[in-house]
Amino acid sequence: MWEFYMPTDVFFGENILEKRGNIIDILGKRALVVTGKSSSKKNGSLDDLKKLLDETGISYEIFDEVEENPSFDNVMKAVERYRNDSFDFVVGLGGGSPMDFAKAVAVLLKEKDLSIEDLYDREKVRHWLPVVEIPTTAGTGSEVTPYSILTDPEGNKRGCTLMFPVYAFLDPRYTYSMSDELTLSTGVDALSHAVEGYLSRKSTPPSDALAIEAMKIIYRNLPKAIEGNREARKKMFVASCLAGMVIAQTGTTLAHALGYPLTTEKGIKHGRATGMVLPFVMEVMKEEIPEKVNTVNHIFGGSLLKFLKEFGLYEKVEVSSEELEKWVEKGSRAKHLKNTPGTFTPEKIRDIYREALGV
Amino acid sequence: MWEFYMPTDVFFGENILEKRGNIIDILGKRALVVTGKSSSKKNGSLDDLKKLLDETGISYEIFDEVEENPSFDNVMKAVERYRNDSFDFVVGLGGGSPMDFAKAVAVLLKEKDLSIEDLYDREKVRHWLPVVEIPTTAGTGSEVTPYSILTDPEGNKRGCTLMFPVYAFLDPRYTYSMSDELTLSTGVDALSHAVEGYLSRKSTPPSDALAIEAMKIIYRNLPKAIEGNREARKKMFVASCLAGMVIAQTGTTLAHALGYPLTTEKGIKHGRATGMVLPFVMEVMKEEIPEKVNTVNHIFGGSLLKFLKEFGLYEKVEVSSEELEKWVEKGSRAKHLKNTPGTFTPEKIRDIYREALGV
Repeated sequence: MWEFYMPTDVFFGENILEKRGNIIDILGKRALVVTGKSSSKKNGSLDDLKKLLDETGISYEIFDEVEENPSFDNVMKAVERYRNDSFDFVVGLGGGSPMDFAKAVAVLLKEKDLSIEDLYDREKVRHWLPVVEIPTTAGTGSEVTPYSILTDPEGNKRGCTLMFPVYAFLDPRYTYSMSDELTLSTGVDALSHAVEGYLSRKSTPPSDALAIEAMKIIYRNLPKAIEGNREARKKMFVASCLAGMVIAQTGTTLAHALGYPLTTEKGIKHGRATGMVLPFVMEVMKEEIPEKVNTVNHIFGGSLLKFLKEFGLYEKVEVSSEELEKWVEKGSRAKHLKNTPGTFTPEKIRDIYREALGV
Repeated sequence: MWEFYMPTDVFFGENILEKRGNIIDILGKRALVVTGKSSSKKNGSLDDLKKLLDETGISYEIFDEVEENPSFDNVMKAVERYRNDSFDFVVGLGGGSPMDFAKAVAVLLKEKDLSIEDLYDREKVRHWLPVVEIPTTAGTGSEVTPYSILTDPEGNKRGCTLMFPVYAFLDPRYTYSMSDELTLSTGVDALSHAVEGYLSRKSTPPSDALAIEAMKIIYRNLPKAIEGNREARKKMFVASCLAGMVIAQTGTTLAHALGYPLTTEKGIKHGRATGMVLPFVMEVMKEEIPEKVNTVNHIFGGSLLKFLKEFGLYEKVEVSSEELEKWVEKGSRAKHLKNTPGTFTPEKIRDIYREALGV
């Protein structure tokens, strides 16, 4: 049995806000824009958005304090600031952080009695403001998923399922100014989404079709994208969107869960962190789905591990044995295990970390 | 620039109505079911649907007089019969004919001042009853497209763009009882959708991903499906749905337009008719997109024409030169030309018909 549901209306192309953005006037006359401190100012996306809002007669407030891997406190800061305003919709502008942030705020500004913890209870999340997403990095795919990943007060990254964005506008020009390092870490995030979605127990025929195409695009274009090639960056932006459509159906797997502490405790960028553990997670998945794991390796030129190694992904990470044991314990309880093929004992999870981190 | 929009919530699997069908109770308490005279009674789908409607407390009327390639008169018969009833939604049950019919009726029962000709004016089609589609053949993909193809009083098949179905339920069991001939003609229809969508000027990265997967599934499974293999029929049902998602983005090409008179005037089943002209249309497309045409032939074992010939698709058709000239003239005016790569002069269209029909 499978389901396919991907209701976001996606628009892709250079100058797409200018060409097709005016469709948002159907959503109302007042918007809250959430974005990070600087990149949307530098890459021109904030100016494009302001121009669109001005031209369509939509008034707006801009919250430009979204942090990387936004915390509960960060979300509540925006909610408290704008609680007494009256918005018709929320626009998330930037990478995964502001896009995920937009979804959380869209619920909490509509359902004013909910706490941020309530976002994790699907029974309680019933209404929200419509969300428009404008990604400026080629990685997260959040523009086409209902997911929001926030960091709780204990420092854990925790994902919740909220709503699909109504519209997503992807202008590849915004990705041309990304640093090489950001192109790599977000590109590997997109790669992980395509691979994990393809290997997930929840994979479906339509999601597999999208995943295979995304993997092929990434294999051909990630190396050139990192070197700044614009055509390759445009292709990576396509692939990250396709890979987002994939995880919207399948969710992610244990590789994502095992990567989280590397980000929250060691400061390794999310995409990099996932990519580091992914090939070793795949080795265990082979027990259950050898053919699909082989297909992934085949698409990536014979070996995904080898492909990733060429980007210098495997730097040694200093980890104490206490830290390692805590992560193993956390990984053994991850809800992602349910949809991850293979049997992941604590021993195997420890081995995955050891191989990935060189410890 | 591209757009991807596929908002239908699709559910696939054996006994899917029993497992997930109760989600329709969100649509209201009274339904109009439209279906053909007999097949939905024979394959068990009508019984499954009635059981679901009874169990969810939804009252309903059944219009079981949908014709193959439904005419304007056929649609208006249903509209006039139920104009004074008050339905919350419409269910199309069967092949492409009842599913397309359901969409037309869903508009005309909601917007009671519209004529059937108004369906072809997108400015006028603003509101409709929600539509649920339950396909029982693996071909049309209408369950995931906004299209409705009706036959006008002059005998022309004419497509209009109405609304996406809200839900599609695909139970492959319904396809197990299809005749071999129906499996072939509907299977070739799905094949044409995947191929034409992939080759269309409106093709997009997500639609190409879905098209490639659909073509691969069809190549591997159509021969076995025709022989009655259930697993292959299930796979063909997946492929027809993926191919429907493709044409929902791209529309069809000149191959569909050239096939229409073969159906309305010579009684050749729709899928067969399209399949007969498709490889010859592809030869002309080669002028503009040689690589993509080669990819299609490669997927189908080297030659799509050879693949189709093995099913006995190319029986000689008696056509007078007057008929032929009329079809050439009609083809030269087809709106499909806009999105069909290559230059299709009347001479080339005449050659396509001659090669396809052996005249």
